[in-house]
Amino acid sequence: MPFYTSITQEGTFSDEERAWVADQIMRIHTEVMEVPPAFVRTVFLTFPPGYGFTAGKAAASTNLTCLMRIGHPVEVKATLLRRLWAMYQEATGAPTEQLMIALQEIPASSAMELGKIMPDPGGDDAFMSAHG
Amino acid sequence: MPFYTSITQEGTFSDEERAWVADQIMRIHTEVMEVPPAFVRTVFLTFPPGYGFTAGKAAASTNLTCLMRIGHPVEVKATLLRRLWAMYQEATGAPTEQLMIALQEIPASSAMELGKIMPDPGGDDAFMSAHG
Amino acid sequence: MPFYTSITQEGTFSDEERAWVADQIMRIHTEVMEVPPAFVRTVFLTFPPGYGFTAGKAAASTNLTCLMRIGHPVEVKATLLRRLWAMYQEATGAPTEQLMIALQEIPASSAMELGKIMPDPGGDDAFMSAHG
Repeated sequence: MPFYTSITQEGTFSDEERAWVADQIMRIHTEVMEVPPAFVRTVFLTFPPGYGFTAGKAAASTNLTCLMRIGHPVEVKATLLRRLWAMYQEATGAPTEQLMIALQEIPASSAMELGKIMPDPGGDDAFMSAHG
Repeated sequence: MPFYTSITQEGTFSDEERAWVADQIMRIHTEVMEVPPAFVRTVFLTFPPGYGFTAGKAAASTNLTCLMRIGHPVEVKATLLRRLWAMYQEATGAPTEQLMIALQEIPASSAMELGKIMPDPGGDDAFMSAHG
Repeated sequence: MPFYTSITQEGTFSDEERAWVADQIMRIHTEVMEVPPAFVRTVFLTFPPGYGFTAGKAAASTNLTCLMRIGHPVEVKATLLRRLWAMYQEATGAPTEQLMIALQEIPASSAMELGKIMPDPGGDDAFMSAHG
């Protein structure tokens, strides 16, 4: 983790744009969250036109979710969200009403990477401060 | 948010059925959760036959997940789940043992939409009541 | 639940390997978590080469996420992660730096399956112990 999933309509990105987004996600996340690059993963899933909907109407809904370790202050997550938003909107050209970015936080001990399970640094405290 | 993801076997929905499901999700969610339609997003992802499994056997596993703001009472979430279940089962024709609907709740401050990060209304209290 | 989602590059699995992974997931999860097989669901999503990235570089990122009920002790989750890791790495042949397995826990009352919403066994206590 972080594990980013971009879900957009087919054709949203050229190969170059997709590579740029993945590189930017790595740069932004490592800078804001102080995580080594090796942990930053991004996959791009797509759907055909007519498979995405906003407000009940067919639309090129443009979404980025991030599964990450819990325990970061609200202000740091806000910085991450704002920088990802600016980058992702530039890359997709999506109108503001079609864009959504969401962070899903789980305890460090709930993931295994590089052959290891990470310990929970602050336990309950870290968890609660993430929701404070 | 809410951000709904339908994951079903290819061919589960005709174009009309898919549009109906997305419209119904918007109607049910706005009614039960009192969220404006503009925030309701749905994407449909599919897998080929042989890519879905229930109880370890190949099956047309039929799933709907919803990433939403934390802080709703258990009773309200139960109403949402029951109404979505009835609608989604009608639309998919899936047998009861193949259907799954799950809500994933995150703090309002963990998402950015319409260019904004929403504040956490009740902080820890809202979070705990959602799990009480 | 559990609801497993395998996200890998196209061609990672033959049909036989995919069926083996789904069967193994069912066996491991029912054994470690004491959940009846009927609740174990797995779907396999794939992306084309050039749609997965690790550390900002194109890579056959190999991911398994599990949406499950909250309330299991950290040690039990660690056993689940380790057994899934060994099995999934054997099946995918993925190098250690490309593999990621993550558990996403939600309250039992946030899901509907087999026509029913399960009660939260331990309420807040179960939730907190899961993060302790």
